Amino acid sequence: MTLNSATPAFVDHLRAELPAAAFREASPAYLEEPRGRWQGRAGVVVAPDCTADVAKVVRAASEAAVPLVPYGGGTGLVGGQLCPEGALPVILSLERMRAVRGIFPEENVMVVEAGMILQDIHEAAARVDRIFPLSIAAKGSARIGGNLATNAGGVNVLRYGNARDLCLGLEAVLPDGQIWQGLKRLRKDNTGYDLRNLLIGSEGTLGVITAAALKLYPRPAGEGTAVMVVRDPRAALDLLALARDHMGEGVSAFELMHRQGLEFLAQELPDIRQPFEERPEWFVLIEVGLARGLDPAGALETLFGEAMEAGLVSDGMIAQSEAQRQAFREVREQIPEANRRVGSVSSHDISLPMGAIPEFVEKGREAIAVLGAFRINCFGHLGDGNLHYNIFPMPGKTRADHDAERDLIKRALHDLVDEMGGSVSAEHGIGRLKVDDLERYGDPAKLSAMRAIKAALDPKGIMNPGAVLRAV
Amino acid sequence: MTLNSATPAFVDHLRAELPAAAFREASPAYLEEPRGRWQGRAGVVVAPDCTADVAKVVRAASEAAVPLVPYGGGTGLVGGQLCPEGALPVILSLERMRAVRGIFPEENVMVVEAGMILQDIHEAAARVDRIFPLSIAAKGSARIGGNLATNAGGVNVLRYGNARDLCLGLEAVLPDGQIWQGLKRLRKDNTGYDLRNLLIGSEGTLGVITAAALKLYPRPAGEGTAVMVVRDPRAALDLLALARDHMGEGVSAFELMHRQGLEFLAQELPDIRQPFEERPEWFVLIEVGLARGLDPAGALETLFGEAMEAGLVSDGMIAQSEAQRQAFREVREQIPEANRRVGSVSSHDISLPMGAIPEFVEKGREAIAVLGAFRINCFGHLGDGNLHYNIFPMPGKTRADHDAERDLIKRALHDLVDEMGGSVSAEHGIGRLKVDDLERYGDPAKLSAMRAIKAALDPKGIMNPGAVLRAV
Repeated sequence: MTLNSATPAFVDHLRAELPAAAFREASPAYLEEPRGRWQGRAGVVVAPDCTADVAKVVRAASEAAVPLVPYGGGTGLVGGQLCPEGALPVILSLERMRAVRGIFPEENVMVVEAGMILQDIHEAAARVDRIFPLSIAAKGSARIGGNLATNAGGVNVLRYGNARDLCLGLEAVLPDGQIWQGLKRLRKDNTGYDLRNLLIGSEGTLGVITAAALKLYPRPAGEGTAVMVVRDPRAALDLLALARDHMGEGVSAFELMHRQGLEFLAQELPDIRQPFEERPEWFVLIEVGLARGLDPAGALETLFGEAMEAGLVSDGMIAQSEAQRQAFREVREQIPEANRRVGSVSSHDISLPMGAIPEFVEKGREAIAVLGAFRINCFGHLGDGNLHYNIFPMPGKTRADHDAERDLIKRALHDLVDEMGGSVSAEHGIGRLKVDDLERYGDPAKLSAMRAIKAALDPKGIMNPGAVLRAV
Repeated sequence: MTLNSATPAFVDHLRAELPAAAFREASPAYLEEPRGRWQGRAGVVVAPDCTADVAKVVRAASEAAVPLVPYGGGTGLVGGQLCPEGALPVILSLERMRAVRGIFPEENVMVVEAGMILQDIHEAAARVDRIFPLSIAAKGSARIGGNLATNAGGVNVLRYGNARDLCLGLEAVLPDGQIWQGLKRLRKDNTGYDLRNLLIGSEGTLGVITAAALKLYPRPAGEGTAVMVVRDPRAALDLLALARDHMGEGVSAFELMHRQGLEFLAQELPDIRQPFEERPEWFVLIEVGLARGLDPAGALETLFGEAMEAGLVSDGMIAQSEAQRQAFREVREQIPEANRRVGSVSSHDISLPMGAIPEFVEKGREAIAVLGAFRINCFGHLGDGNLHYNIFPMPGKTRADHDAERDLIKRALHDLVDEMGGSVSAEHGIGRLKVDDLERYGDPAKLSAMRAIKAALDPKGIMNPGAVLRAV
């Protein structure tokens, strides 16, 4: 399919359809992505303030066969939000659609527009004594439309699920400009194919999400946080099972960290207070939110006692104040920043069947050792089987020294993940970064179904061309 | 698209491809459905015992453009499991594919074949001290492939979600005979479009599910059950909110019932012990499953006390033994059977935004009153906003006396549900029964997307033609 650039004539046509306030300068903010790997381009940047105007933009792009890139907070890590080649696209930013359309505390539902910033959603939920549990590092700038388009994950997936699990309904503009009015606030609705989940995670290639009905949750009556030193990832898994025996769904986060992360933190962010005098090889951060009648710190203490007896943990601390909880969390939250400062050779957002994680950690280390001497920082959302597996140069070397090995490392690790039944993109998506990986590791029947769906819903291929599927 | 019947010549072709054991007599069991509304037909009934043979059947049907109806336990309530008209189909029964492919208690995952009976899955989970929480009345004969194909709901949706929320991965044969190997055991996997959720709930119109990776849950440490008399549906909703404030996710079922249901029970199933001396107008059944350290009966008592003080409840009983729990449950479980014996004029599986339920209950009663004198039994999964709204003749009259009003009643109720943002098929699906309703109430953009997807994945229209979407 040949696409046409958003030429000045096309832009004039849009200007006749939309209010002047909808047009934005194509500033660098719209053309860069956090990893700095691609440079975007734009024929025009538009930011409509209502769904009807989004539909006008999509219809115009469809009629003229001009590529269209939906734009949220620009925080995606796989280059899904920009278009580095081909015809000059329309960048369609949802930044002006950030209204709360309704809050229904008794239903545990909030209906918001796609441009609302995740952090603002958290605050709106808190004002009615509820939580919206999706939480990611970029929450201060990521917008919910993008979170849904990429099916964002984060730290609370163990308890509350991914973005798709937190959405009851969508309003979206389909590639032909039709508006799907799917903002239902229902927990049960079996009326036809699941278009909601098809759009969620499709990374803007099948339509533009303009609003969403989100699930809220009651705030747990009491929250608690602990760090515990575990023997190894196997013991961490056993500890998780024990914690769930004790507290059921009350376990909201279970994060594994490695000494390497603490060493990078000490080196790059020395002001961050570390929980242990002597840095352990492996430790976990556990967060729980319990119902009335239970004392979270007490429950964590009981858990720690039993885990000690079972030989799973050797040391631990249970936060005794909100400040201490924040301090424990900050260690986890700042590890990615320390990583960034050190500069990884290669970083991997992978998931595995939980039971396979201990074996993967060992085999991964062996596979990397064959390729050279590296430092590995393996950490992440163990409770979801999601590891961030990042590989760094040895001290004195830099990322650039290993340019030649990068592809080999990636291949070795991803082959191993695939062999063990894992995923080479656990929570960040495919975007433009992993199109090759999807072709290599994706199931052929699924890929052919995906291509058929894409061609059926977007026959001209205008929606975010080149993301997820290679542009045809 | 013209489809061809499964002629003797086609059956001979299948016989050459499949072992003799795969062929079944086309007995009435395959050609009837529980409501007795349609009579199915079959050119041949095949029951392969492996995915490769399912793929052979689908390929043969695809090549010859013969319709194919996937068949699970035959318990569906909307006629999705049979083909009353058009070319004679292949009935593809999954009954011989009922193996457990793997149980991973530490991952809370079980991989099963599509023909496994739901009750058998419950038992297999119990043997490793886990639960698979999907529970419906037909669990003794329904098969998991059908539960997934129809996105079954049931009583535990409030806590654990619908069938789609309980599935991590699928293996399925697509309409062209390709096998999708999607049996991942991952909690996070963002590699492309969500084909899993597209197949779940598509009622056999987009492919044949052959196996599934299911989510298990730890068994709650302690379980409790209570019945409480509420003033009205509004008070029931407030009681639910209070219960969730107390017990968070610990509330596993919250069922609303009406005096009419108790009266039908007394009349049709007098041996069932009723909980209240004097039948209340409205009451709820509450089930909780709590973490260690909490006493379910005690927690329910505290809840009851607070609810009394708040004027939400006027009477109640908390089960003090497993036998009493079963007795309370049986009341809820047997109401559908009592309904069946009385014989409804019209029955409706609907859902509403939870906050709209009290208003709906009033308005529904008014809308029906305009059409004549009827008895209404309104009950169901209040915690999910899902009501079973069944309309019965007055004493002395029969269902047949109201044949002329049936369509008017349905139209009046469904129009009201639609106006109030609800769904005309909450958990049973569309099947053949509600194709017209979907066309009337479905969003036009969604319908056109559904048709495009159907045509893209099943261009010959062989998969369960006439279910969900009108055959073209």
